[in-house]
Amino acid sequence: MNTITQNAADHVSIEQTLNRWSQAVSDKDLPRISEHYSSDVLAFDAVGQLQFKGRDAYMAHWQACMATCPGPTLFDMQQLHVELGQDLGFGHFLCHCGGTNEQGEMQSSWLRVSQGYRKQNGQWLIAHEHFSIPFDMLTGQTAFNLQP
Amino acid sequence: MNTITQNAADHVSIEQTLNRWSQAVSDKDLPRISEHYSSDVLAFDAVGQLQFKGRDAYMAHWQACMATCPGPTLFDMQQLHVELGQDLGFGHFLCHCGGTNEQGEMQSSWLRVSQGYRKQNGQWLIAHEHFSIPFDMLTGQTAFNLQP
Repeated sequence: MNTITQNAADHVSIEQTLNRWSQAVSDKDLPRISEHYSSDVLAFDAVGQLQFKGRDAYMAHWQACMATCPGPTLFDMQQLHVELGQDLGFGHFLCHCGGTNEQGEMQSSWLRVSQGYRKQNGQWLIAHEHFSIPFDMLTGQTAFNLQP
Repeated sequence: MNTITQNAADHVSIEQTLNRWSQAVSDKDLPRISEHYSSDVLAFDAVGQLQFKGRDAYMAHWQACMATCPGPTLFDMQQLHVELGQDLGFGHFLCHCGGTNEQGEMQSSWLRVSQGYRKQNGQWLIAHEHFSIPFDMLTGQTAFNLQP
């Protein structure tokens, strides 16, 4: 991980936080996913509505998305870069996401992820999140096959 | 604008920065757009590649995108929320973007935008940016018609 911060403890803390969050996503464990977000998180997901306001609305969306992928989940963070100040920061990474469809086939794509972090009561939380896949400017089609 | 910051001068500074940036985009003025980014900006745009590394690569992409919309440009920021620390922060907003096609028709969509801010030499710069439109989970089609 590439982290710009003057505080070694924050460096360790955000790394642990994101690794726990990523593992919770792979495990499809909604309560463990949820505890990494601030209650007022504002999220832009790759699918569905333009935005989700608040942790409850966002977790309901996570649950609906996870219900569409009953098989094992691929959730691999790459090229993570984080910059942290005293109580605020941001980060971004590429994410290889996928799941097994009803025919038992693994379907995956590379997504881009941006996050805004806020330290509350000594704990780093995700206060903003943005997942997406770009589309082709000429055809308007979602570019599911892009590779890093 | 909804801004969480303990420094009134930073509040004013980031608001002025984003208003100037937005006006430069509407004016399709590449040099004025460029001066709002750090040289090491990492950008995820709504179209094209997964990512753009550095201001030069990102500005070349901006130029190519603007060349596809020769008419007037709509670039309207809504629901802006910014959180700033001493030297780092993040923000997000919805953006009504559009341009006139060769038939003189205005074509527009709502995009989501996330930004990471870094203060360098007393000036707030955009060090990370993420534009996107979500896609429909069932059809895989880009959701150009979503409304806030």
